[in-house]
Amino acid sequence: MPATSLCQDEACPPYSLMDDYSEGAHPQILEALLRTNSTQQVSYGGDAYSDEARQLIRNKINCTEDEADIFFVPSGTSANLISIASCLRPYEAVITLDSGHIACKEAGAIEATGHKLILVPAVDGKMTTTNLQKAIQQNQFFPHMAKPRLLYISNASETGTVYTKRELTNLSALCKQMNLLLLMDGARIGTAMCSKKNDMTFRDIFDLTDIFWIGGTKAGALMGEAIVVKKALSEGFVFHLKQHGALLAKGRIMGVQFMELFRSDLFFTLATHANAMAEKISANFEALGHHLVAETETNQVFVTMPQQLAQRLQNRFRFYIWDQLDDGQVVVRIVTSWATDELQVDKFNAWVAQWTAAAKEFTTN
Amino acid sequence: MPATSLCQDEACPPYSLMDDYSEGAHPQILEALLRTNSTQQVSYGGDAYSDEARQLIRNKINCTEDEADIFFVPSGTSANLISIASCLRPYEAVITLDSGHIACKEAGAIEATGHKLILVPAVDGKMTTTNLQKAIQQNQFFPHMAKPRLLYISNASETGTVYTKRELTNLSALCKQMNLLLLMDGARIGTAMCSKKNDMTFRDIFDLTDIFWIGGTKAGALMGEAIVVKKALSEGFVFHLKQHGALLAKGRIMGVQFMELFRSDLFFTLATHANAMAEKISANFEALGHHLVAETETNQVFVTMPQQLAQRLQNRFRFYIWDQLDDGQVVVRIVTSWATDELQVDKFNAWVAQWTAAAKEFTTN
Amino acid sequence: MPATSLCQDEACPPYSLMDDYSEGAHPQILEALLRTNSTQQVSYGGDAYSDEARQLIRNKINCTEDEADIFFVPSGTSANLISIASCLRPYEAVITLDSGHIACKEAGAIEATGHKLILVPAVDGKMTTTNLQKAIQQNQFFPHMAKPRLLYISNASETGTVYTKRELTNLSALCKQMNLLLLMDGARIGTAMCSKKNDMTFRDIFDLTDIFWIGGTKAGALMGEAIVVKKALSEGFVFHLKQHGALLAKGRIMGVQFMELFRSDLFFTLATHANAMAEKISANFEALGHHLVAETETNQVFVTMPQQLAQRLQNRFRFYIWDQLDDGQVVVRIVTSWATDELQVDKFNAWVAQWTAAAKEFTTN
Amino acid sequence: MPATSLCQDEACPPYSLMDDYSEGAHPQILEALLRTNSTQQVSYGGDAYSDEARQLIRNKINCTEDEADIFFVPSGTSANLISIASCLRPYEAVITLDSGHIACKEAGAIEATGHKLILVPAVDGKMTTTNLQKAIQQNQFFPHMAKPRLLYISNASETGTVYTKRELTNLSALCKQMNLLLLMDGARIGTAMCSKKNDMTFRDIFDLTDIFWIGGTKAGALMGEAIVVKKALSEGFVFHLKQHGALLAKGRIMGVQFMELFRSDLFFTLATHANAMAEKISANFEALGHHLVAETETNQVFVTMPQQLAQRLQNRFRFYIWDQLDDGQVVVRIVTSWATDELQVDKFNAWVAQWTAAAKEFTTN
Repeated sequence: MPATSLCQDEACPPYSLMDDYSEGAHPQILEALLRTNSTQQVSYGGDAYSDEARQLIRNKINCTEDEADIFFVPSGTSANLISIASCLRPYEAVITLDSGHIACKEAGAIEATGHKLILVPAVDGKMTTTNLQKAIQQNQFFPHMAKPRLLYISNASETGTVYTKRELTNLSALCKQMNLLLLMDGARIGTAMCSKKNDMTFRDIFDLTDIFWIGGTKAGALMGEAIVVKKALSEGFVFHLKQHGALLAKGRIMGVQFMELFRSDLFFTLATHANAMAEKISANFEALGHHLVAETETNQVFVTMPQQLAQRLQNRFRFYIWDQLDDGQVVVRIVTSWATDELQVDKFNAWVAQWTAAAKEFTTN
Repeated sequence: MPATSLCQDEACPPYSLMDDYSEGAHPQILEALLRTNSTQQVSYGGDAYSDEARQLIRNKINCTEDEADIFFVPSGTSANLISIASCLRPYEAVITLDSGHIACKEAGAIEATGHKLILVPAVDGKMTTTNLQKAIQQNQFFPHMAKPRLLYISNASETGTVYTKRELTNLSALCKQMNLLLLMDGARIGTAMCSKKNDMTFRDIFDLTDIFWIGGTKAGALMGEAIVVKKALSEGFVFHLKQHGALLAKGRIMGVQFMELFRSDLFFTLATHANAMAEKISANFEALGHHLVAETETNQVFVTMPQQLAQRLQNRFRFYIWDQLDDGQVVVRIVTSWATDELQVDKFNAWVAQWTAAAKEFTTN
Repeated sequence: MPATSLCQDEACPPYSLMDDYSEGAHPQILEALLRTNSTQQVSYGGDAYSDEARQLIRNKINCTEDEADIFFVPSGTSANLISIASCLRPYEAVITLDSGHIACKEAGAIEATGHKLILVPAVDGKMTTTNLQKAIQQNQFFPHMAKPRLLYISNASETGTVYTKRELTNLSALCKQMNLLLLMDGARIGTAMCSKKNDMTFRDIFDLTDIFWIGGTKAGALMGEAIVVKKALSEGFVFHLKQHGALLAKGRIMGVQFMELFRSDLFFTLATHANAMAEKISANFEALGHHLVAETETNQVFVTMPQQLAQRLQNRFRFYIWDQLDDGQVVVRIVTSWATDELQVDKFNAWVAQWTAAAKEFTTN
Repeated sequence: MPATSLCQDEACPPYSLMDDYSEGAHPQILEALLRTNSTQQVSYGGDAYSDEARQLIRNKINCTEDEADIFFVPSGTSANLISIASCLRPYEAVITLDSGHIACKEAGAIEATGHKLILVPAVDGKMTTTNLQKAIQQNQFFPHMAKPRLLYISNASETGTVYTKRELTNLSALCKQMNLLLLMDGARIGTAMCSKKNDMTFRDIFDLTDIFWIGGTKAGALMGEAIVVKKALSEGFVFHLKQHGALLAKGRIMGVQFMELFRSDLFFTLATHANAMAEKISANFEALGHHLVAETETNQVFVTMPQQLAQRLQNRFRFYIWDQLDDGQVVVRIVTSWATDELQVDKFNAWVAQWTAAAKEFTTN
């Protein structure tokens, strides 16, 4: 299979498998924005669409208005920093994986609100009760150490793995015992919920956490995340939105998008597609004998390959070199999304197969 | 003229003249989002549309890439807090009108970044050199007072007035002399530029300020503001965007919208419409003998009327009662926008005329 | 009376009536430091002297350990910023006089902890329920305005006046009704308690406030202030001390000093002396026909005089020119303290009398 | 040797070897406070004693007023947080050892000023260029990671080791190359300078760092640390002192103490004593076959011993159990100071010897 059969227009730019936010929004979402565009609405989140979206999300969670408040913010960093700042006192600290998004991808946003991060190593990309317990114990030197008060986890994790109900139940129980709040970053909660490994409902997650948020940006929306806050913690939350510039005048933009995502099962359909594309890529790598660094449970594939192979692939596809290993191998991250074109996935897999075979032949001879 | 001629469907909700963000986006902007939706783009503001929008804005300013950096953020509060936090040291303070948006409409966002506000009374809704000078003098008790370092003004002002070139030149000169930076909040800079009172170009504003921002939200966009930062102050600015949750993964959303606003003269056309609608309302009030609290220079009308008239109008139109006066009169704020329907303006004017006449008749008899 | 009779050594530097912290500590306090110096003590406030001082203060308040916690900090600014930061959520604001110490003498310390100040004009140097009510009402635009949550007052006030029991009772009742905490800055609470105008006990102040602090620096100590916090608000307070650098390793320094101040009535004896000296100066001004800007209720005298007289006095005495009036008059602030030498007060009064007489004679002729 | 020969009064409390701040101040310092107590001085650091102390310190450094500014603050945490906050922009981060004082003993004070800490493992209690380089490299993902901008180290280190001139020269060179500022925490710089391992002058340290501070609290003062700031960084520093409550009204207290410490060589004499006492304890442990966890280079001894021995010693002496090892052994920290009584050191050594012998006999039999 010659290269030309894969990309007939030689000038075509590399196809991006870099992240899950390279495209705009799912067409249905744009149509919803068009459809609702001309009505006059109350500003700052008081619009009918945001109300409707909040109710639809509550329905999915199977919770009442008395149990949870829901707030829309424009970005994941907003969701994290506002959630954390809203429920900690100034001397309280956050426990997070050292690979946590707030620890290494948000430019110090949490510290900028005044709070210390306590870093814990990951196991399969996840927080374990053992490591959590140890971190709590090591931060008890009163009053010289900031007081651990909130556990931050992501589901799916930074390496695409998902928490099982047992794992989250255990973490949640330990948090309650140690007086820690539990915040789940759900930037990719859609793919987590649609993972074959998942055994939790939204209600489970709601019950086992204090705050969790549902990512829209990586799930087919233009932007926007929905923060679900237990009633006991939601007083004054809107002030935080406003104070951090996250309370949009036209709150309807986020309301309409979440309304559309949850009106039917669009949110889940899109995540399921993303996962399926990743699985296809992952299966191909495994079949060809490449080593997966993390199990492919959602829409991210972490795979080891020779640097040379990665470079050749990068002529056709855009993706991150995640790590440089000592032996000339690299770890590559492939991310699929609601928008990933299956034809491109097939091409990607074909190229991987072709070049892997060529490399083997070369090595053998 | 019976009421039914104004609103034939008795059940129709009041028409909003409450603010300039009650509707979605101008249709051309939505079309641009649709048109560009499926291309793959670099994330976090590195997309081709944001680049194009930045160049178009620079063209309007008539400045080069070496002179100014441009950043897109989702909200006006973001624009203000990031601009201010990015160029002040921790002990430096901001001078603002006591009616300034940062002083009374942003839930303490500036203080939340650690900076003191020094409040100054307005004259015609604007900062004067006299009042600025006085504020600087009164805050010099070293090191017991935070050091004045930045002047914040809005154009159009909170009461809809605009700065003349002479006024801004004088403020700018005083700032330079006293070592103050000058930030212009341009949430409504479109209507300011299109005001009949305006005698400045974007280049003038660029030259006379250190940072200014161009509001998209109130100018026909779904959301988004473009911050124009003089090169000398822009180092590290992107970190601030990220740290405050304002660096959207799909930066294209704002890029596309500003591209569309500035590709042709849409930005100015829409602002001109808003101003025209306000002028029509304002002229009617004046013709009927109502007192304007501030001259109507842009898209806001501040008018005094009997409480009873305001209440009757509120059955048909939504707007803010801005102030309660002692004599049973109220100050009403009417805001028009790119989306304001001229038919509704005519109805509004007709109702005002009818009820004003009725009231006079009643009073006379 | 020739000048030489007042200062026989022509080279003697001007005597300072500038503030109440120009000297070191009262000798008894230094002796107590010497006496206790060599014992080994638990660090960071756990020493026996701090315990003893806390108990002595509780005795003066007539409250139990279950009612109040007491913390020592090195400075008044520490006391204010820690007290405020410890009990506010990030979006909550402080109401203060515009002449309040936190508003204009602490370099933005409160804003640096993230909190907005809402400024209110003073009446006789004090907060009134009318002005407080108005400030609360004007800051209710949810969620665009930071939420008023704490009233900050100083007793004695910045102009040396004191709150009566009725005044404080009314403010306290309004605070409770409006869900505001009440913090009293007691940098000069000693002179307030010893004022002839005072009709409150420490127990009254404790009952009517949520936090108040007892100033040591201006009351004869080397440094140190004692913050009295109602039990309901004291959880986690020590973390704040530590986080802001106010938890001294050798907490004993402050413990010993407050122990000495409250072991007998030294604290009150010293304040009484300061007040008596101010009264003497004040009475002389009045007798000579000078206008007092504020009634002299504690250890500060604010008096109007011709600029020329102020300048002549400044050759012999150091004090602040507090304000420049339009008519060539100035407002002068004279501060006395526990250390003020009565002989110097007599000289000061004599000079004032002599020069006032000379000026009158000159004017008459 | 029976126990009674060591402590004849059975009721005598355990002697503290817990830290270097259990006693008050060196008697000469108290005498200086007494001697200078009654003069009137300018407040807030403008007093003659502070001026004199600053000059004496500059003399020791051998630098001019044009090269360095010196500021006195009440605590080490103040010194660190003010130094760091004064020279970083909001998105800039601090690199520190994970055992650094700011990382685990200051209750999140640095994060409370908004800055992220990047943690690096120690080698012999110290930062190495290798680990520093790695940390810088791992924090370059623009703009998703806070920007490394300042290296924080302590000399002596947290485990009592000292930096050699070669080590500090290399760190300093790497900092310059990577555009990092270098801050040295000198809480125990006295014992570092007096260590037998030290090969640096104050001038060396001044040249190789941007800011360093000289600890008074642990060096015989009641309280107070002197921050030495290179001229290029000192603008506005006083505002930071004020804003964080560290600018004492009676700045003379710190001025007098540092004047006394540096008037003669008291500062060094006291540190030399502390080191000698630690060396004596350390040598005894080694002679008896106990394992030192860190080399005893200053006034701290970290030694491994059976838990049982530690417990017996704790009946007579107070010290920290620093770590619990897996095999029933513990790591004990012994700290000596300017005030440590050599007689008590001899007793301590004798008890260690007696019980070590007893334990060996027991084990042998």
